[in-house]
Amino acid sequence: VNFATLKQAFESTTSFGKLKNCNPTVAGKNVYLRLTCFSGDAMGMNMVSKGSLAVIETLQAQFPMLKLVALSGNMCTDKKAAATNWLEGRGKSVVVEAVIPAAVVRSTLKTNVKSMVDTNLHKNLIGSAMAGTIGGFNAHASNIVTAVFLATGQDPAQNVESSNCITLLEETDDGDLWISCTMPSIEVGTVGGGTSLPAQSACLQAIGCKGGGATPGQNAQKLATVVAAATMAGELSLLAALAANTLVQAHMQHNRKKPAAAATK
Amino acid sequence: VNFATLKQAFESTTSFGKLKNCNPTVAGKNVYLRLTCFSGDAMGMNMVSKGSLAVIETLQAQFPMLKLVALSGNMCTDKKAAATNWLEGRGKSVVVEAVIPAAVVRSTLKTNVKSMVDTNLHKNLIGSAMAGTIGGFNAHASNIVTAVFLATGQDPAQNVESSNCITLLEETDDGDLWISCTMPSIEVGTVGGGTSLPAQSACLQAIGCKGGGATPGQNAQKLATVVAAATMAGELSLLAALAANTLVQAHMQHNRKKPAAAATK
Amino acid sequence: VNFATLKQAFESTTSFGKLKNCNPTVAGKNVYLRLTCFSGDAMGMNMVSKGSLAVIETLQAQFPMLKLVALSGNMCTDKKAAATNWLEGRGKSVVVEAVIPAAVVRSTLKTNVKSMVDTNLHKNLIGSAMAGTIGGFNAHASNIVTAVFLATGQDPAQNVESSNCITLLEETDDGDLWISCTMPSIEVGTVGGGTSLPAQSACLQAIGCKGGGATPGQNAQKLATVVAAATMAGELSLLAALAANTLVQAHMQHNRKKPAAAATK
Amino acid sequence: VNFATLKQAFESTTSFGKLKNCNPTVAGKNVYLRLTCFSGDAMGMNMVSKGSLAVIETLQAQFPMLKLVALSGNMCTDKKAAATNWLEGRGKSVVVEAVIPAAVVRSTLKTNVKSMVDTNLHKNLIGSAMAGTIGGFNAHASNIVTAVFLATGQDPAQNVESSNCITLLEETDDGDLWISCTMPSIEVGTVGGGTSLPAQSACLQAIGCKGGGATPGQNAQKLATVVAAATMAGELSLLAALAANTLVQAHMQHNRKKPAAAATK
Repeated sequence: VNFATLKQAFESTTSFGKLKNCNPTVAGKNVYLRLTCFSGDAMGMNMVSKGSLAVIETLQAQFPMLKLVALSGNMCTDKKAAATNWLEGRGKSVVVEAVIPAAVVRSTLKTNVKSMVDTNLHKNLIGSAMAGTIGGFNAHASNIVTAVFLATGQDPAQNVESSNCITLLEETDDGDLWISCTMPSIEVGTVGGGTSLPAQSACLQAIGCKGGGATPGQNAQKLATVVAAATMAGELSLLAALAANTLVQAHMQHNRKKPAAAATK
Repeated sequence: VNFATLKQAFESTTSFGKLKNCNPTVAGKNVYLRLTCFSGDAMGMNMVSKGSLAVIETLQAQFPMLKLVALSGNMCTDKKAAATNWLEGRGKSVVVEAVIPAAVVRSTLKTNVKSMVDTNLHKNLIGSAMAGTIGGFNAHASNIVTAVFLATGQDPAQNVESSNCITLLEETDDGDLWISCTMPSIEVGTVGGGTSLPAQSACLQAIGCKGGGATPGQNAQKLATVVAAATMAGELSLLAALAANTLVQAHMQHNRKKPAAAATK
Repeated sequence: VNFATLKQAFESTTSFGKLKNCNPTVAGKNVYLRLTCFSGDAMGMNMVSKGSLAVIETLQAQFPMLKLVALSGNMCTDKKAAATNWLEGRGKSVVVEAVIPAAVVRSTLKTNVKSMVDTNLHKNLIGSAMAGTIGGFNAHASNIVTAVFLATGQDPAQNVESSNCITLLEETDDGDLWISCTMPSIEVGTVGGGTSLPAQSACLQAIGCKGGGATPGQNAQKLATVVAAATMAGELSLLAALAANTLVQAHMQHNRKKPAAAATK
Repeated sequence: VNFATLKQAFESTTSFGKLKNCNPTVAGKNVYLRLTCFSGDAMGMNMVSKGSLAVIETLQAQFPMLKLVALSGNMCTDKKAAATNWLEGRGKSVVVEAVIPAAVVRSTLKTNVKSMVDTNLHKNLIGSAMAGTIGGFNAHASNIVTAVFLATGQDPAQNVESSNCITLLEETDDGDLWISCTMPSIEVGTVGGGTSLPAQSACLQAIGCKGGGATPGQNAQKLATVVAAATMAGELSLLAALAANTLVQAHMQHNRKKPAAAATK
């Protein structure tokens, strides 16, 4: 059995999914196969599950002693925090960056470039390092990932790994603010799942990535960049609020309930 | 300044929140304080933010050289995968367990006790270990945590850490199936946030934990056990489907779209 | 620039080292290259450092804007606990296994198969999971790795990652004890470093892997299996002592000082 | 049974060891107790093992259903990379810092402050974050920890966790270089183990921490600061070599063998 045979088995179960790689991890007598697949504009879990089963059946036909313990062995890793997604990616891997002029940092974000860079260093890099994170070197990526996922019909349970993000800030030579978000494991699709529900479908339409793309996979990739760009905006906003120490006021002001009546006071 | 002073400062900002502990982590010149608080039936983020600011201001009054870099330094750790939540807890820490008679495993789960125990060992313990997880020793806790969070008005962005779970299975001396889920960081509340929205409020009512409890905190604690118990049911279900190798059929059958028309094929 | 060019650059600096792979990780504007190399019977750090510098200089010639921040960017990862070594390997990746007859477990290890399996499950799998380990699912691999490293002229500072190990135990169908140790990142060499010191050289001679192998790399591979096999023996020994609860007696008996005079009592 | 009873049990087994804390972690039916102890100038493993056994026996006398699975359940965590040591400490927790004048950075380290700070950021913070480390935010702490451990009769197998270190660099307001190393889990002793061997004893003498301290624990604490200070010096040295890109030359120059004859070329 070689990769071509496994690829053929996988692709016999789907009209456009492709098997791109198959990476084994051995632990004692166990072998965990991690498949890398192209799933077009679909997030692809069902497609991949079906194709994986065909791969296993092909292997079993060749190696009758092989016993399938579980179709998912947690090396995927789906919906769990795991280094494998952080290091090797899952879904789409996206890096976004932007430069915010110093004047905008002052006027809109109510702080300054140096404070933003410092806050990011001491919170998102050093603080997260002290907390023992794998992939959580950000301020609140999960808030934005979850919001966009709910709005566009994604699986919000996958925000565990889709929120993996390292946020980096630097002062440019011109004194402006450079920011980037590196997100290796955003799991999104523009067809299937909840994407055809009315509200979610309308949101996908509004950001120009509803349904299958002209080139397969194009819309899903665009949606992943939307998730990352929105996350970067959220990072800017929270880092600014922390740098300017206005977080508590902001929360009181935008609370669902009026501060005076806040049930949580 | 001692703990009593900090406690007084914290509690001056809230009518029923309590500061219970304050744990410092040092990194170079930085000190990260992690506060343990009682927040009654509220999830408590706003309450804790306000109280924390008062704690910092009290410290600054005493130590004028102290500089606040950020009100949240990521040792919390909110909405990021981090060992600190796994090891020291956050929100509610819950352990649930159950014994499922062998006959039920056969008739309802369509598999047997030994297969269930084996699948859990090779997937949730060994597989997750190989994947480099911290706190993700489960099959799909995130699915259930997210569902219950959405249904009851919780913050779904917090499922990153609320889904931390180790699932353990054993065969009992009588040949039945013992299962437990250990979840150290479930973040829930029954007042505040989205809990007063109509649908969510109705769900909380249905499971008997709407609003503040007779004893403060009682309803939120009950909701946390509901999250954990539902998660345990989900673990049983998925582990059985994997042990019986019926996952793909189940997904095809319960898909939103009819399999014949599945856009993701 | 493609891989062939980088390979040529790397191999121009060494008479027998080979560049086998080059895997980039992006974080914002940074690119971290992780090179996979063949270093024959040498552990290879110096060889790889020199070759890596040549790779970078080749890239800089092609991309003049590329700035080398550091020849080692910690994705290696050398002498630090990191998921990358656990997931992707470093040095030699070895799996060893053995079956110990139940009678030997009783007579020599003074315990029984079921107790051994249970102790391993609750200590090395569940206990380590609770402690938040990445790659530390073993009883005391580091003790044996360090001992063999010192005896054979290896770099004991590399035991941080060379000790990565998951130990698995099962009862066989015949009631015997199956044990395996999976160690993905053992860093050893039989030439260079401390291997030519007299005592160390004699030890390498004694286990049949002194100097370069008949086939390059053969002796270093053999040494890695010796490390893993010795580790497995150590795991058996400590797990048995814990299962039989004789650890304290054993330590008192084999202490450097007589128990009566123990300075640490 | 309360803490006073456990403390009494522990301290009945040792003439000067003290039980300071007992922290339980629950996983299903398992309870893992992590004991915090004072062990004077000894590293204390044997003392703690004996005391722990007494604690367990006391608990078993009170709760006859309690079954000891293993005296060490890996929550310690001894000789394994684990978040628990990084977050909660083990042995001695030390932070050292220094300011290096910019002129010395130029003349001795052959680089400049900004390059040093940049190299540390991109290698030790961002690079290590990308590699999925827990506690390995340093350049090569393990090299120095291992060297000092071997020289002073410590257990080199404990360098796995004793090397936990985050190295931080900043440019001061005066343009000088501030550096700190934060090391939460250095395991050392000045009595017992290999400390009484001739060479090791002489080394301890030379740095003024041989044998028991005037105040119990004082010498072991001093030795821990020596380990940390030496580590900081090593960090400065390697970061400078990387910043100035002289690592390869340095290794060729200080190799055991002359470069011309290097077996590893």
